[in-house]
Amino acid sequence: MTVQSHVFQPEGVDEHDDLATAKAARGTTWTRVSDGTAAELEAVGETFGIHDLELEDVRNDVRPKVEQFEDHLFVLLKTATLREGDTTFAEEVKTRTVGVFVGPDWLVTLSTHTIPAVGLVWDAVTREERRLLARGPDFAAYRIIDAIVDGYFDVLDEIESDIEAVEEEIVGATGLDLLDDINELRRDLLSVRRVLWPTRDAIGVLARGDLDFVDEATEKYYRDVYDHVVQLVELNETYRDLVTGARDIYLNSLSMSTNEVMKTLTVVATIVLPLTFVVGVYGMNFERMPELAWPYAYHAVMLGMGGIAGVMVLYFRREGWL
Amino acid sequence: MTVQSHVFQPEGVDEHDDLATAKAARGTTWTRVSDGTAAELEAVGETFGIHDLELEDVRNDVRPKVEQFEDHLFVLLKTATLREGDTTFAEEVKTRTVGVFVGPDWLVTLSTHTIPAVGLVWDAVTREERRLLARGPDFAAYRIIDAIVDGYFDVLDEIESDIEAVEEEIVGATGLDLLDDINELRRDLLSVRRVLWPTRDAIGVLARGDLDFVDEATEKYYRDVYDHVVQLVELNETYRDLVTGARDIYLNSLSMSTNEVMKTLTVVATIVLPLTFVVGVYGMNFERMPELAWPYAYHAVMLGMGGIAGVMVLYFRREGWL
Amino acid sequence: MTVQSHVFQPEGVDEHDDLATAKAARGTTWTRVSDGTAAELEAVGETFGIHDLELEDVRNDVRPKVEQFEDHLFVLLKTATLREGDTTFAEEVKTRTVGVFVGPDWLVTLSTHTIPAVGLVWDAVTREERRLLARGPDFAAYRIIDAIVDGYFDVLDEIESDIEAVEEEIVGATGLDLLDDINELRRDLLSVRRVLWPTRDAIGVLARGDLDFVDEATEKYYRDVYDHVVQLVELNETYRDLVTGARDIYLNSLSMSTNEVMKTLTVVATIVLPLTFVVGVYGMNFERMPELAWPYAYHAVMLGMGGIAGVMVLYFRREGWL
Amino acid sequence: MTVQSHVFQPEGVDEHDDLATAKAARGTTWTRVSDGTAAELEAVGETFGIHDLELEDVRNDVRPKVEQFEDHLFVLLKTATLREGDTTFAEEVKTRTVGVFVGPDWLVTLSTHTIPAVGLVWDAVTREERRLLARGPDFAAYRIIDAIVDGYFDVLDEIESDIEAVEEEIVGATGLDLLDDINELRRDLLSVRRVLWPTRDAIGVLARGDLDFVDEATEKYYRDVYDHVVQLVELNETYRDLVTGARDIYLNSLSMSTNEVMKTLTVVATIVLPLTFVVGVYGMNFERMPELAWPYAYHAVMLGMGGIAGVMVLYFRREGWL
Amino acid sequence: MTVQSHVFQPEGVDEHDDLATAKAARGTTWTRVSDGTAAELEAVGETFGIHDLELEDVRNDVRPKVEQFEDHLFVLLKTATLREGDTTFAEEVKTRTVGVFVGPDWLVTLSTHTIPAVGLVWDAVTREERRLLARGPDFAAYRIIDAIVDGYFDVLDEIESDIEAVEEEIVGATGLDLLDDINELRRDLLSVRRVLWPTRDAIGVLARGDLDFVDEATEKYYRDVYDHVVQLVELNETYRDLVTGARDIYLNSLSMSTNEVMKTLTVVATIVLPLTFVVGVYGMNFERMPELAWPYAYHAVMLGMGGIAGVMVLYFRREGWL
Repeated sequence: MTVQSHVFQPEGVDEHDDLATAKAARGTTWTRVSDGTAAELEAVGETFGIHDLELEDVRNDVRPKVEQFEDHLFVLLKTATLREGDTTFAEEVKTRTVGVFVGPDWLVTLSTHTIPAVGLVWDAVTREERRLLARGPDFAAYRIIDAIVDGYFDVLDEIESDIEAVEEEIVGATGLDLLDDINELRRDLLSVRRVLWPTRDAIGVLARGDLDFVDEATEKYYRDVYDHVVQLVELNETYRDLVTGARDIYLNSLSMSTNEVMKTLTVVATIVLPLTFVVGVYGMNFERMPELAWPYAYHAVMLGMGGIAGVMVLYFRREGWL
Repeated sequence: MTVQSHVFQPEGVDEHDDLATAKAARGTTWTRVSDGTAAELEAVGETFGIHDLELEDVRNDVRPKVEQFEDHLFVLLKTATLREGDTTFAEEVKTRTVGVFVGPDWLVTLSTHTIPAVGLVWDAVTREERRLLARGPDFAAYRIIDAIVDGYFDVLDEIESDIEAVEEEIVGATGLDLLDDINELRRDLLSVRRVLWPTRDAIGVLARGDLDFVDEATEKYYRDVYDHVVQLVELNETYRDLVTGARDIYLNSLSMSTNEVMKTLTVVATIVLPLTFVVGVYGMNFERMPELAWPYAYHAVMLGMGGIAGVMVLYFRREGWL
Repeated sequence: MTVQSHVFQPEGVDEHDDLATAKAARGTTWTRVSDGTAAELEAVGETFGIHDLELEDVRNDVRPKVEQFEDHLFVLLKTATLREGDTTFAEEVKTRTVGVFVGPDWLVTLSTHTIPAVGLVWDAVTREERRLLARGPDFAAYRIIDAIVDGYFDVLDEIESDIEAVEEEIVGATGLDLLDDINELRRDLLSVRRVLWPTRDAIGVLARGDLDFVDEATEKYYRDVYDHVVQLVELNETYRDLVTGARDIYLNSLSMSTNEVMKTLTVVATIVLPLTFVVGVYGMNFERMPELAWPYAYHAVMLGMGGIAGVMVLYFRREGWL
Repeated sequence: MTVQSHVFQPEGVDEHDDLATAKAARGTTWTRVSDGTAAELEAVGETFGIHDLELEDVRNDVRPKVEQFEDHLFVLLKTATLREGDTTFAEEVKTRTVGVFVGPDWLVTLSTHTIPAVGLVWDAVTREERRLLARGPDFAAYRIIDAIVDGYFDVLDEIESDIEAVEEEIVGATGLDLLDDINELRRDLLSVRRVLWPTRDAIGVLARGDLDFVDEATEKYYRDVYDHVVQLVELNETYRDLVTGARDIYLNSLSMSTNEVMKTLTVVATIVLPLTFVVGVYGMNFERMPELAWPYAYHAVMLGMGGIAGVMVLYFRREGWL
Repeated sequence: MTVQSHVFQPEGVDEHDDLATAKAARGTTWTRVSDGTAAELEAVGETFGIHDLELEDVRNDVRPKVEQFEDHLFVLLKTATLREGDTTFAEEVKTRTVGVFVGPDWLVTLSTHTIPAVGLVWDAVTREERRLLARGPDFAAYRIIDAIVDGYFDVLDEIESDIEAVEEEIVGATGLDLLDDINELRRDLLSVRRVLWPTRDAIGVLARGDLDFVDEATEKYYRDVYDHVVQLVELNETYRDLVTGARDIYLNSLSMSTNEVMKTLTVVATIVLPLTFVVGVYGMNFERMPELAWPYAYHAVMLGMGGIAGVMVLYFRREGWL
């Protein structure tokens, strides 16, 4: 059973399984559909006068928005979670849609998935916070929206620790594998960004407060949530900047490495090749090469070559190539 | 015969070949010109009071737009299809123009090409969905526009699988051939973007709903199509990001490959060159080189060189160059 | 004589050389100054009440704009042509200014150059299209502006074929010469862009139609020209994208080429250096090197080295380096 | 004790420890909470009618903003300081939040930290500048905001000298260590930017001046502060540009260094390898090599090789490789 | 003496040294402070009712702006000059501030520097152009602003010739020195841009013309200056593009040079190394090497090697490596 209703009465909170009764009941009603089927959504929609197109929005992957209807306010939001992905460090962002419908004395939340943020507020109502519904459906909606927005802080925290893990790996990296992780993180932050921007706009509409069904006293709470979303948007930008920085260091450490390799080759070749030439000279078979007969010529040549090599090593050390 | 008219009557749908009769008929009329010649467009234009400049827009490659005229609403849209291109994986985007004209009780669709999306709705009217025209020309127009917009999802799906094909090829790539594919994909997404942006604006105008000939009840359907276009725009951006990521990995894998090549050269040269120097030393022809006469000098030298080579191999392995 | 006037009368078009007569004449007058001197501009300006600052704008290199004055409308536009430049493939963009002044029953076009687009419309009036002036000065102005805008399509076509020429050269390029061409093309497109953007804005003002001296019936023609300019702006962006793509391939083909060169060096050195070491070994002069005396040692060594070389060639071929 | 109040009376400034008395007192009151606990903030909030959500903003890391309430104006600002970071040259930016509340005849400043800028103005009031509070709470608020904004100039000055330190190190740099510093500086400037932008917007709201509790006479002072913030924003952009420039030179100096290394290798190898070939020729053991017996062949060969080497050195010097 | 006043009377221009007399005089007064001290500014400010904050703006480095006050209009502008900088080709941009104050019948110009543009207009008034002040203080202000704006054309001209100088050096450049010049030029253009943008906005405000103290007849002159500033802004963008282009060619010519170096090394090594191997073969000391005894073996080997070298040279030439 995924359709549940709470009705707040002066004397306490009732639970109703029958939609019609719940709607008709005196006091604020909150009807929740969690992990709902199309049929369940439709049943609730019919009871509360929610249009088919709104239900379709809840079922599909539509961007967050606020729409004012004659008899209710429709707030569509998304939650984000991270799922194991293909890469070593980064996860994939997965979003789910929740519809929040605010009527004059009723609140409906619909989703085709289980949304933990909604569940938390539901449980709070069930257990103790009776005043929550007493302050009207717009205040309860604020609580739900706040919980959803807070969920993004967790997601960004997790992404931040992924970034740190990648940053640590970069130092000794010798392949292109991390580029996949970095790209995945970039994509994650882009996904989150793509949800946060319209969320910010939608909540901005709620905070500006010229909507029906949102009490003036509640507006300042929406302004508060709005500030949180703005902060999330900025956090997201900061992390994008971190990822870009990591990427730069990573790619340049590759070309740095080529530079190191080249230095090694150059040092070895520059020292050894001339000496090989020298020994080649005394390997020639000319009949008249007077040096060959000198008593300590061999030792002199060996010493000379040792000297040349030593000077070169000193030179390269001074140049910082060794 | 490419000019056809449907007239919805309470008792059923009539088909008329004569334009004047169709227009005069009681009930909603839908006149369609598919794959039409300039003359056919003009004939229809004259009957329904469509200006020459509007017809010219339909014939030419003009960007999507909505224009409100005194006696009708003019919606110009484009469909996109993919065509085999020059590159291995990517196709070329081909767009075609459709004009949708909505009058008080008539609907006209004009195109100089055959537009499958329009044909689908036409067939739906012909066969069974009689109520489609009963809800007025603005609702039928919505159905057509919806079908056109949905067509873009197919195009983007195909582009996505092209991107995946390219991404798989990147791993073992050793040439610049894929850059053509990647550029083609980038260009495709740019083309689609260039159509989607004004389409979004145009449908946004329809969804905002202060236009004549669009019923207030139909507006929410247009808002729905609007959400789809926004989604397409975002999908497009996501794919552009994927292509950029693929391009980065591709180009860096080239410089990675240079790095690998350099490492090989450096390892070989660094091991072999010093040894060549050593054998050169004992190839010198000095008369007094005492080592030459030692009984196991040759074997000692060979062993020594083997030792040096071994140490070097170990060193390079530790450095990750082997 | 560069100042000419046409006066449309019900019975035909008169030509007047005297400005005052032309202006006083009944019917729509079009006075054209082509390739005009400062004095000629001033004479016309005085007759029609055009301010010195407007004339200065026509003489100088000012960006396209529309200005509404009390007794006339001032439209400043630019035409673009391509001129031989310093680079092999690309040309240079050259712009010229035209002032179009629309009064209640007169039209004045001023330029210090010969503007072919204006000449075309002039000739059309002279020869046959008498109705052109009959529809009022705003319609004639539309025809001129349309001709000017169409001229940009030719310019962009030519730039496109330059881009194609450059793209073909890129494949076998081994120097940085093409970078000049690519930069020139980029600069050309930037120049065109810099003219098209304010042109779009100016014509947008005309198309929005709350100006004096522009008849409501003519506005839809201006909207049509506006669509063309928007198309030009987009074409321009597309070509900029093509040029950027070409540039990327070009620059990366250079680093690709370095990669190829390195591979060649590495393959040769990796095969030959070890073999040179081997022959060096048997060139040593140790007294006790038993192999030297073996009957087929030489042939064995040669065969062995051939084998090593063969194995290496196979390895490199498998790695894709050969 | 972190809660303090000043009350300006015609005859002097009183200090009150009791909030209620301070508020009730005739004359302008300034109550300051510095380094305050949640409880202290709440006590002050209750006395002056400041909402819990505003207090929460002061406690948390919310972006600068101005909010007009019915009975007071809420200005939230941030100060920035630099703290030792992980990198050699760059420091980390640390921001702290201050809430400035302007009522009809009272001023409240709240912070959970000690804010030197607020302290400076407080001391000025205490000691001598009695007229400061006499001009009303909005003028005192201006002084505080001005002091806060001025603090950013110090931060940017310090960042500038960090940039200069990094720029000097770049010249002889041979590792990627500086990239960390450069990235840290980039991040610092980004952090400052992220605070300055909303600060600019907030102060812009104050300067535009259609707010309650801000006297028209004070507005021009706010416009002055606004100009300072705009200047800070531009300074910040300039420094970002400097950092980007430093980064470009740094990264290119790495690839420059690879180029230098390659030149050295090429020069050495190109000179020595051919000579080694020559001496190899005369080391061959053919029985009939007439040159070997020529009396001065050895000297001739040596001289010839010296000549070749000399020519090559000259060539490389002319090419700028030496 | 840096404070001077002109008073225009029907019968001529008077010069007054006393501020109060100058202000009180019938006719338009222009009081100029050039290279003024704080005291002088204050004296003038007091006489004409200019606020201290405005004077502070004149003294400091504030961005150009227009502010409408009750009794006068305040226009703050900046002039730019170029000063010798640290780099070889580029100069540094130095800006100076001028305050132009337009009252009902007076004009005040204040600066703490000598501003040549203001001096030019001053001299024009002194010598001959009496009508200049006769047209009112707003027209004289236009002349000054026009002179200031024209000064930027000189600055941009100079920067353009610097760019050309750098472009010529790029061709044969072999170090990173030019990068400093290019960065300096980029920074110069950025500085100019940073002044031009707010100047454009400020003059745009003057040109839009709903300000007090600016006559409707003068507005078209301000529109003219506005067009000039827009042109300057675009010129600036064009030069930025040139600098970016130069920078691209410069940096790529470095990597091009690495490519050239690598080609040289590869060609030499690929030709010489195999030949060295061949001569090594015949330097082996095997007892049974039949070729060694063949009569013309030596010559055959030499010829063979010459042939191989020749073939290789041809191959490399065909590949474009030589």
